[in-house]
Amino acid sequence: MNTAALYHRPESEYAYLYEKGHFHIRMRTQLGDVTRVELLSGDPYTLHSDEWFRDGVAMEKVYSTNLHDYWLIDTNEPTNRISYGFRVVGEDGVEVFFSDQGVQPFEASLLREANAYFRMPYVHEIDAFKAPTWVRDTIWYQIFPERFSNGDATLNPENTLAWEEKANPGRDDFYGGDLQGIINNLDYLKELGINGLYLCPIFKAASNHKYDTIDYYEIDPAFGNKATFKKLVKEAHDRGIKIMLDAVFNHLGWHSPQWQDVLAHQERSEYKDWFHIHEFPVKNLGDLTTDEMENVGVVNYETFAFTGHMPKLNTANPKVQAYLLDIATYWIKEFDIDAWRLDVANEVDHTFWKQFYKETTSIKSDLYILGEIWHSSQSWLNGDEFHAVMNYAYTNNIENYFFNNTLTPMQMVAGLNTQLMLYRQQTTEVMFNLLDSHDTARILTKANGNKARVKAALFFMFTQTGTPCIYYGTEIGLDGGNDPDCRKCMVWDTERQDLDMLNFTKDMIRFRKRYAEILTYGKVEWHDLRDDEQVIGYKRTLGNETLIFYFNQSKEKVKLDRLLENADIQLSINLAQDEEGLTLQEDGFVACYHVKGDKSE
Amino acid sequence: MNTAALYHRPESEYAYLYEKGHFHIRMRTQLGDVTRVELLSGDPYTLHSDEWFRDGVAMEKVYSTNLHDYWLIDTNEPTNRISYGFRVVGEDGVEVFFSDQGVQPFEASLLREANAYFRMPYVHEIDAFKAPTWVRDTIWYQIFPERFSNGDATLNPENTLAWEEKANPGRDDFYGGDLQGIINNLDYLKELGINGLYLCPIFKAASNHKYDTIDYYEIDPAFGNKATFKKLVKEAHDRGIKIMLDAVFNHLGWHSPQWQDVLAHQERSEYKDWFHIHEFPVKNLGDLTTDEMENVGVVNYETFAFTGHMPKLNTANPKVQAYLLDIATYWIKEFDIDAWRLDVANEVDHTFWKQFYKETTSIKSDLYILGEIWHSSQSWLNGDEFHAVMNYAYTNNIENYFFNNTLTPMQMVAGLNTQLMLYRQQTTEVMFNLLDSHDTARILTKANGNKARVKAALFFMFTQTGTPCIYYGTEIGLDGGNDPDCRKCMVWDTERQDLDMLNFTKDMIRFRKRYAEILTYGKVEWHDLRDDEQVIGYKRTLGNETLIFYFNQSKEKVKLDRLLENADIQLSINLAQDEEGLTLQEDGFVACYHVKGDKSE
Repeated sequence: MNTAALYHRPESEYAYLYEKGHFHIRMRTQLGDVTRVELLSGDPYTLHSDEWFRDGVAMEKVYSTNLHDYWLIDTNEPTNRISYGFRVVGEDGVEVFFSDQGVQPFEASLLREANAYFRMPYVHEIDAFKAPTWVRDTIWYQIFPERFSNGDATLNPENTLAWEEKANPGRDDFYGGDLQGIINNLDYLKELGINGLYLCPIFKAASNHKYDTIDYYEIDPAFGNKATFKKLVKEAHDRGIKIMLDAVFNHLGWHSPQWQDVLAHQERSEYKDWFHIHEFPVKNLGDLTTDEMENVGVVNYETFAFTGHMPKLNTANPKVQAYLLDIATYWIKEFDIDAWRLDVANEVDHTFWKQFYKETTSIKSDLYILGEIWHSSQSWLNGDEFHAVMNYAYTNNIENYFFNNTLTPMQMVAGLNTQLMLYRQQTTEVMFNLLDSHDTARILTKANGNKARVKAALFFMFTQTGTPCIYYGTEIGLDGGNDPDCRKCMVWDTERQDLDMLNFTKDMIRFRKRYAEILTYGKVEWHDLRDDEQVIGYKRTLGNETLIFYFNQSKEKVKLDRLLENADIQLSINLAQDEEGLTLQEDGFVACYHVKGDKSE
Repeated sequence: MNTAALYHRPESEYAYLYEKGHFHIRMRTQLGDVTRVELLSGDPYTLHSDEWFRDGVAMEKVYSTNLHDYWLIDTNEPTNRISYGFRVVGEDGVEVFFSDQGVQPFEASLLREANAYFRMPYVHEIDAFKAPTWVRDTIWYQIFPERFSNGDATLNPENTLAWEEKANPGRDDFYGGDLQGIINNLDYLKELGINGLYLCPIFKAASNHKYDTIDYYEIDPAFGNKATFKKLVKEAHDRGIKIMLDAVFNHLGWHSPQWQDVLAHQERSEYKDWFHIHEFPVKNLGDLTTDEMENVGVVNYETFAFTGHMPKLNTANPKVQAYLLDIATYWIKEFDIDAWRLDVANEVDHTFWKQFYKETTSIKSDLYILGEIWHSSQSWLNGDEFHAVMNYAYTNNIENYFFNNTLTPMQMVAGLNTQLMLYRQQTTEVMFNLLDSHDTARILTKANGNKARVKAALFFMFTQTGTPCIYYGTEIGLDGGNDPDCRKCMVWDTERQDLDMLNFTKDMIRFRKRYAEILTYGKVEWHDLRDDEQVIGYKRTLGNETLIFYFNQSKEKVKLDRLLENADIQLSINLAQDEEGLTLQEDGFVACYHVKGDKSE
């Protein structure tokens, strides 16, 4: 047995309270190396009775990656105190005891050592990761406000271009999108089926993207005012749509009064400790255009990336903390927003985010806190900072399989499972799954215009655990390369909208809502993942309900299993029925609803 | 290469700020499986320049266990942002890139993927684990106050026995030890050389051990009063001795007014939510003796272990939190204590301990917070709860080698290294190392009376990184089995004190103080760890200073290396010089000071 590959970590994603009475324990072994893992556990103060460790309870092998198998058990102790260790049986017949003292031969004498065991000393609900339950049933729609809809032309900034004037928007273009435009289209969004709106920043800022904040307490005047925003929230809530705002707390904008004060008064500025300034005088980039400031390299103050017009905030300064926390709570208290998306969240300190979590959730206990993090995010997802991150690391696997053909089905599943095993189950349930955003090329472009693949990838994502998001315009076939091309104006002319895509999106959302329970909690079973085939088949099962999926990425038709023929087809593309039965055409997929017992398997 | 055994975890003991400018990155491989590990790193926003990852920097193999090698690098980025991955070269010649995307063949194309890398998005000093520096230079002395010295007979509780009246104290005996007794002996302690006093609980409680608190705001009347305690702190501080008190916050005592109120008023008690009560009426164990309450099994309220007279506090209740936090800060503010030792710390919730850390360190920034945890403690040692734990898990290895003969030298070192790799380096520097306490048998008894082995084990512990503790009486040869036998009265009659042991202890403390820097920061190199020999040799090196140690646990004499002959012998037992040179007798050890360059090696 490869004992060096065994891994477990107490009080982490490997050992956590899922919900009252359900403590999850995971253990990692080398792929295919181990035939059986048993949990030996009991109350630590009853170890002397030497009864509880005699009978191990089998753990289930739930996920495999390219390197590892993961084993899971859902357990509990009436006293809330758990001592535990693992009996591991290798393919080679070797038996070991894996515990807090490492790996040892499986011997009774060792099992009597209280200190040998891993410990969950006491299961405290107050320490558990708790996610707002509404998020699990939410389908998000991301809006880049400057480009969604112009509802109030009187607010247009100077030099506003006509809507869609350029096929490919320039970096500094303005098109006049605003909050009234969003309000005007809430019925459109409701009909689409989405029930969560994620708005890119709407606070006063100089650029069209508004990530260079001037004043967090003001709505950008080109977008509207507080009354408009209040109306937007109310109208959205009336339609069952939640509102998530974008908080840019890593840095301020060049034109903010605080930074301008630093430039004006330098060392004498009352804001000099609000930033990370290496020396005075601070280099004044005022002569450069915003564009030129975008990549200034190292200056004598810290910035977001190397963008000179976004000086980094010193969130270790109690004054900055108080300022930002007041903003965070202000928009909840006064405007009843439901969620915060945190920009560049990974570069702000944990100490600050813990305060943020405490203060915001104490006002609104079911607030959803979403961090922008693209890499492994365990340190932020322990229950006292964020509920989720923008799950690019997960969905990149989908993209690499469906769009880039750089992964085989098995590799994609290995990649997905690797990500799933980084987080607690309740975290995964509210992870923010997305295939594109204002920060990436659009999926239609990524898929090289292959709409069938866009549909497949989107639908695949919608069948995964996690809360899915559609980037505005995807539903009507908007394309676009990297920023700024992914920020095109929404097309409202129905003649130029891809109505097939629109209908598909509605069907997909309906499907997701109808089977929300299975798609969130259902166990996943993969089949037919042969490396030489571009076909993926899997099932999700919850209780006696089963959903069956097939995705065909190959150039050939694929004849489907007999079991599909009696199932209810809920959604499909490129599915054909001929004398040979059901076949999936090139780039086709099918989802079937299937109830065990009712239908033959 | 065994790629399934590779392990790294961002923002953990595997990747942390050690001190400003020194970011430590560790990586784990299978023992003996890998010949080289290189770190590829740079600022994440400069990845496109494709320069920084061309030249990996070799990591050093610093520790090995029975299963793994651990690799370390001390690194830094001027921008405070680090993207990193590992080039790993196997014994078999295989080269892989190990990163946030898992293990892949080492290919240039992959290295250009920004998302491939592990991230330390921004190194924030505010998030770093910071330990009070004085602890690294502290040698502790633990006192069980009821048994150290009776300085004021007028305080003796009823039925106080004469000092040392029983050779083996009973569970409920009282002997009259008190705070004045400690004050009277501060000069003795100063002469011994210790500079930290850890006092078992001194607050008002019913038992002799005082872990069943009645009133946290009162000194137990049999121990003295607040004036006596104030004097004790002052007199200790005057002698350069720090004071650590024991906080028992997991549970209250049966006789506390809060629990008595619950018993009296049951569901109508204002304290009913202070505990974890399953149903009313709460089972009244008032008819049982304390002894009988010790193991009542499951009752209808939660308890410490199964001891009915210690009802568990509900630390999720804000009133309980406020109550305990006031106590925690009261003794710092009013009495200037330097450290809190937290009893049963692992069974109290993290949420509470984070508040505790924040509130206590905001009053006294260099307070030392020590948790009683016997198992792996990563979850409490991330910088916002405790500074250290009672390091039984580490020292058990020493005991198993020196006293129990259940480990070979290599196994002991593997066990020590496993523990070292669980924590950040700055944590290890302040870990509370101890071989016995009021909760274990005494070392002389564990060593079966073999004093030479007691000296060897103690001295071995004193040469380890971490802050060592001596349990009262060890220095004069006190023995004793498990509780209550390990709580004998201190022997003050010099005729019956083991003065050889006392002198040895003084020498050992002097040695530790003289070489504190090397023994805290010095690199460890082991040699001659052959499994068939009961001999351990190792060096600790810092700059151009080296300390050399040899421990002989065998029945045979061991001739020492030539290199020792020109070194300054600083401390030894059972060391002999004859015509053949230096030899270590049975159960002997030697420590030599050796400066490279000055002395021949």
